[in-house]
Amino acid sequence: MSDRAAAVLSALAERLPGDCVITDPDLMESYRVDRAMFCAAGTPLAVVLPRETAQVSAVLEVASEHAVPVVPQGARSGLSGAANAIEGCLVVGLERMAEVRHIDVANRYVVTQPGVMNAELSRAVEAEGLFYPPDPSSWEFCSIGGNLSTNSGGLCCVKYGVTTDYVLGLEVVLASGEVLRTGRRTVKGVAGYDLTKLFVGSEGTLGIITEATLSLRPAAQRPETLAATFDDAERAAEGVSAVVGCGIVPSLLEFMDRTSVQAVNDAFKLGFDPEVGAVVIAQSDAGGSHGREEVDHIAKVLADSGATQVVVADDPAEGELLLKARREVLTAFERLGTTLIDDVCVPRDALGALVKGIDAIAAEHDLVIGVVGHAGDGNFHPTVVFDGQDEDESRRAKQAFDDVMTLGLDLGGTITGEHGVGVLKRDLLAREVGDLGMRVHRDIKHALDPHDILNPGKVF
Amino acid sequence: MSDRAAAVLSALAERLPGDCVITDPDLMESYRVDRAMFCAAGTPLAVVLPRETAQVSAVLEVASEHAVPVVPQGARSGLSGAANAIEGCLVVGLERMAEVRHIDVANRYVVTQPGVMNAELSRAVEAEGLFYPPDPSSWEFCSIGGNLSTNSGGLCCVKYGVTTDYVLGLEVVLASGEVLRTGRRTVKGVAGYDLTKLFVGSEGTLGIITEATLSLRPAAQRPETLAATFDDAERAAEGVSAVVGCGIVPSLLEFMDRTSVQAVNDAFKLGFDPEVGAVVIAQSDAGGSHGREEVDHIAKVLADSGATQVVVADDPAEGELLLKARREVLTAFERLGTTLIDDVCVPRDALGALVKGIDAIAAEHDLVIGVVGHAGDGNFHPTVVFDGQDEDESRRAKQAFDDVMTLGLDLGGTITGEHGVGVLKRDLLAREVGDLGMRVHRDIKHALDPHDILNPGKVF
Repeated sequence: MSDRAAAVLSALAERLPGDCVITDPDLMESYRVDRAMFCAAGTPLAVVLPRETAQVSAVLEVASEHAVPVVPQGARSGLSGAANAIEGCLVVGLERMAEVRHIDVANRYVVTQPGVMNAELSRAVEAEGLFYPPDPSSWEFCSIGGNLSTNSGGLCCVKYGVTTDYVLGLEVVLASGEVLRTGRRTVKGVAGYDLTKLFVGSEGTLGIITEATLSLRPAAQRPETLAATFDDAERAAEGVSAVVGCGIVPSLLEFMDRTSVQAVNDAFKLGFDPEVGAVVIAQSDAGGSHGREEVDHIAKVLADSGATQVVVADDPAEGELLLKARREVLTAFERLGTTLIDDVCVPRDALGALVKGIDAIAAEHDLVIGVVGHAGDGNFHPTVVFDGQDEDESRRAKQAFDDVMTLGLDLGGTITGEHGVGVLKRDLLAREVGDLGMRVHRDIKHALDPHDILNPGKVF
Repeated sequence: MSDRAAAVLSALAERLPGDCVITDPDLMESYRVDRAMFCAAGTPLAVVLPRETAQVSAVLEVASEHAVPVVPQGARSGLSGAANAIEGCLVVGLERMAEVRHIDVANRYVVTQPGVMNAELSRAVEAEGLFYPPDPSSWEFCSIGGNLSTNSGGLCCVKYGVTTDYVLGLEVVLASGEVLRTGRRTVKGVAGYDLTKLFVGSEGTLGIITEATLSLRPAAQRPETLAATFDDAERAAEGVSAVVGCGIVPSLLEFMDRTSVQAVNDAFKLGFDPEVGAVVIAQSDAGGSHGREEVDHIAKVLADSGATQVVVADDPAEGELLLKARREVLTAFERLGTTLIDDVCVPRDALGALVKGIDAIAAEHDLVIGVVGHAGDGNFHPTVVFDGQDEDESRRAKQAFDDVMTLGLDLGGTITGEHGVGVLKRDLLAREVGDLGMRVHRDIKHALDPHDILNPGKVF
């Protein structure tokens, strides 16, 4: 161990309770990586699991003094490597700061620590008759802190927006160890720069979020659900565009291509006709007869767009069954091989072109790529299925992944709709934001973290 | 004229068409101030009215080279002095960059220049069956650029949020004259820092916005309207809280206190009972029978909370009549004297305490202060009415204004919900964001504008 490393560990031992600092290599192993593929990860000098903000401050003071990199971690459910350890770093895991602090029913907000799981928070506020919309598919095993760091989306974004739309204020520990409070607890506020939304989505490169005040909505109504089948993706894409243009904002509007439908059909015997070329699933949570009217209207729009079959669920259980195909698609792909999940967002009317382009990429690289996603937002998760033990196939999978990004950018889209840049897409960011955009990123990073200790080498 | 001033004018003459640069003192006079009171304003060296982004770049290159302050201006409808000229500055007025560039119906966004008036933009997208929600009361005479710079709100924020919620991407000219593109044209996107929302609300201190891509919603439905009277503000505040808690999100939820009702009643003979102590106005734009159901439900909630009378409009014309009281209250106050409009946002359940506190402040300073505002957001505009010719009364008005800010902060609120900081509240900002918050503001400002030429001395 180097002198510096020893000095850092000694400083941590002085500042923190012994059980907050892990240096056992076996115990540290699981803190090395998130769920991303193809992303390098180092071995941490130590994993620190603070219980309170003052302890996070202490870690950052030590890290600043000794110029050691710090990697903030939520639940390591991320798909871009943003939470991967850096060689010799201090991992700061927020799992012990996992308390829902205060639910203010009258003012519809919740104050929470970052280690709370999305589903826990959602259930806690639901018990008070309130609703926290952002609902990543990983909601049972992703933390609010991670959601904030990547500005997570989910299924109901099409109607309710993404994480940043719900963040009223933050407590953030800066690189220096100082504790900054941003934002407010009121619904509106324009006093000074919007620092809150600058930290949201910054993937742990600007500070460590130790508390968040999140706005809430009134309880959601029981959703009405429909599923529609199409002969091909082009027809389904027209259907999606027609729904987007029909004046109703559904609370969910999902798409599955032929590959995805077949995979899930084979895995779970869902009884889809093998000829089905695409599925669109929609929900309305307008409530009562109004919800049913909305879904009936969407059903008609999809039928008019050439759907071969449209099924409207009679009750929530049947609705869940219709959604099951969408929810289980990743599991179905995982049975077929290693999966590399992409995350591209294109203009809403580019779905047809995206699927067509991805089919061509799959053929070119001789790979299976299924396309599922949040059609109402133009946000898709093309998933490459390959043999992870086969070196050549792995190389082709990575190449196909990059080709999908290029296709997304060419269609006027972005390299990431909700998963973040992390390590996985770091080299692609400049293509999206340009040289000047990169310089502005670096200037802001330098302003907040002059010694570059916070998650260095991530994002850019 | 100093050598530097002469050099700047000569450089501008070289870089810009002659009719873009105004130096005639009479013509420059109207560009000196926005609509704020009690805010110092200097005399510009020149007013520049560019027609295109390249010309904005040219001005900033010249300003950077000669270290001359630059004050960006929209329609000068602001209420905080952010657009007031600084002595010897270059005012950059965006009034000639006033084209709605492109409305993308399929993807529901509009690309617009900053000089377009909010109402113009709203009408342009409405003609395409779309809806741009942010609706400041000044919508006919405030520009989109100004809305972006102050992150404007409006009446329908309670359901639809504020300006920043609709900004997908920006073109911004930096202090250096370089042209930065932020954001995207897709619904979602998390590639890099959210620079877009950092520029929104920065009141011209970080860059000059020359183009914006704004997301749109499907056309709004015909609103249903109700008005309810109460004996006093406390009872009305309970009614507002009950509506906030009733599970329906109205598309408008406004409040007027006794002073405001009386002023508008006297001025426009609206026939309110002189005993009316407060009025709450609500709308639902859920559409058709559903909208009517929502308004009927809100009517019942308000009646149960002790409203003395609840009137539900039979048609849009009657609805507009009910809203007239709210819309005309400033005009009514202006008939009574000089008006100083405040803008404070408090937790939604603090309305009763706010009105009570303001009544006490009015009594202490022997002034009339009416309270109106966006009750559903907790965002109020206490308006001090005084004799602007009377020095002592003016001093008391300013003091009362400051006392209202302190009251708002004490109630857990913010010093500005939608008007911005500008010059008017500059000295109050540190009280809200703290010393560290101020340092972070300065660090970010310095990162983007190292020579402090963009609207220096505004906000902080």
